[in-house]
Formats: sequence, structure tokens, C-alpha cells
Amino acid sequence: MNLDTARRFVDGLRQDIPLAGFMGLEAVAADDRSLTLRAPLAPNVNDKGTAFAGSLASLSTVTGWALLMLWAHERLGPCLVAVSHSELRYRHPVMQDFTATATLPDDEALTQLCHRIASHGRGRVTLSIRLDGGEAGAVTQTATYAVWPAPAD
Amino acid sequence: MNLDTARRFVDGLRQDIPLAGFMGLEAVAADDRSLTLRAPLAPNVNDKGTAFAGSLASLSTVTGWALLMLWAHERLGPCLVAVSHSELRYRHPVMQDFTATATLPDDEALTQLCHRIASHGRGRVTLSIRLDGGEAGAVTQTATYAVWPAPAD
Repeated sequence: MNLDTARRFVDGLRQDIPLAGFMGLEAVAADDRSLTLRAPLAPNVNDKGTAFAGSLASLSTVTGWALLMLWAHERLGPCLVAVSHSELRYRHPVMQDFTATATLPDDEALTQLCHRIASHGRGRVTLSIRLDGGEAGAVTQTATYAVWPAPAD
Repeated sequence: MNLDTARRFVDGLRQDIPLAGFMGLEAVAADDRSLTLRAPLAPNVNDKGTAFAGSLASLSTVTGWALLMLWAHERLGPCLVAVSHSELRYRHPVMQDFTATATLPDDEALTQLCHRIASHGRGRVTLSIRLDGGEAGAVTQTATYAVWPAPAD
């Protein structure tokens, strides 16, 4: 994943998804296997001055989704991606700006995903996502996403 | 739970939690065992015109949290509540305004929670939350929350 490409993609999300714009999402790191998005605390704070659980879940879930959108576009052309299952563990309160880092599964899982999309028109893949904010791994997530080719316009 | 009390509580959340304000949360139903919050689609839409997964997770998680805050206040006095674990199944896309309904567990589980708070200063309880928007149960959630008495000011 190229960081400039990821930044342009997330800039577009802030335009197209009102909540992503309000949350102030930005891409801050990307490599071949992972993507990191960041959100400032101020718009995402709760009544106790820590990060709102909904903002933590949103950043984490959208980071995995964005990683798969970018990966699928590079590997398969334009695709759609939708989360189907998510498990979140909230381990520590977050009292500062926070990042979520999503990591692709191993090559075997990605190859299986590509075969499944080729044979069935759609596949699923599970990602691990780690949210850091003060404490590393303040929230950890396992999320499963469906991936399928975008219909031609 | 009294609907007027729930409305005042959620009005306060919209003031105190910027994301809750942006999402346009409001309380629309409450009884002794459950609470329903509603969010309009417009501020919560994604790039495909359906509800953003982060908004769905946020509404669902905050509805369970609000139900426990209101229940605990009635039963135990001022308490703090924090989500510790959440599992979400996204079953159908949501293409309209949506509601989340959180339901208290049975009386035995609530009695155990009260005993645990009395003996250990803190307890945990698991709620089922159903999100409806077009399809009933478009998203279903199981979430565990910690509950403890608010420190005196």
C-alpha cells in the first residue's frame, strides 16, 4: 500500500462519509501489509473526557475496511467491501488522539480469498486491528469483511 | 425506565458527546426492561447511501450503555458504565433511519450484578441489542459492560 494513495482514499472518505469527516480521520502510515488511520480526541471525546466507544469502534472498523478496499483495488480492480462480523475488546480508556492499525492476513488466506471471489463472485476474510492511544492495544478487534467486484457502471 | 427521563438523558448526551450530537441520537421508547434510541440516516450515511458501519456500531453500543446508566441510577444511585466487550453481526444493509433496542437481562442476572457491585465495588453484565432499519435485526449485538458506583465529588 502506498501512503499517498491511502491519504487520497481517506481524504475522499471524509468527503463521502459525514461521520468520517466529523471524526477527522486521516491516513498516517501504510505498507504492503498494513494501514494506520488516526483520529483526534477532540471530536471523538465522551462525557468523561476519554474517547467515545463509538468512535473507537468506528475508527477500528473503517481502518480494516479501507485496508481491504485499497488491497482489493490493487490486486483485483474496483471492489466493494462490507463488514459482516466484528468483535471488539475495550482494554484501556483512551485519553489522547488515537490510531488504528489493520493488518492483512497471511498470503495463503489472501490467495484463498482471491480464489473464492473468482469462483463464487464474493469472498470473506478476517483481519486483526489494533487501536493505540496512550496504551498500545487499548482496543483490539477481529473483524470479518465480505469482498466482491464492483458492478460495472 | 421512564421515557421522559430517557429523553432528558439522551438530550444531555447530545450536548456532552460531540459524536452523539452529530449522529442526531434521540430516545424514542423506554419501558421497565428496554430502551430504544433512534438515529436519522442523513448524518450517518456512507459512500454507498446506506448506514455507515461505524454509526451502526455507535448507536447500538451507546444504547446498551444508556440503558445501564438509567437502570443503575434508579437502582443503585449514580454509577459509571463502560463497555468492555462487543460482538456485532451486520446482517443487512440499512437504507433508512434506524433504531437500536437494548434489553436488560433477567432478574437473576441483575441481582447477581448488584451483589457483585456490593461485594467487589464493580460488576459486569451482558446485554443483547437489536438494530432495526428496514430489516428487523439488521445488526445484532452482544455487549458486556462494567458498572460501578460513581466516586463522590
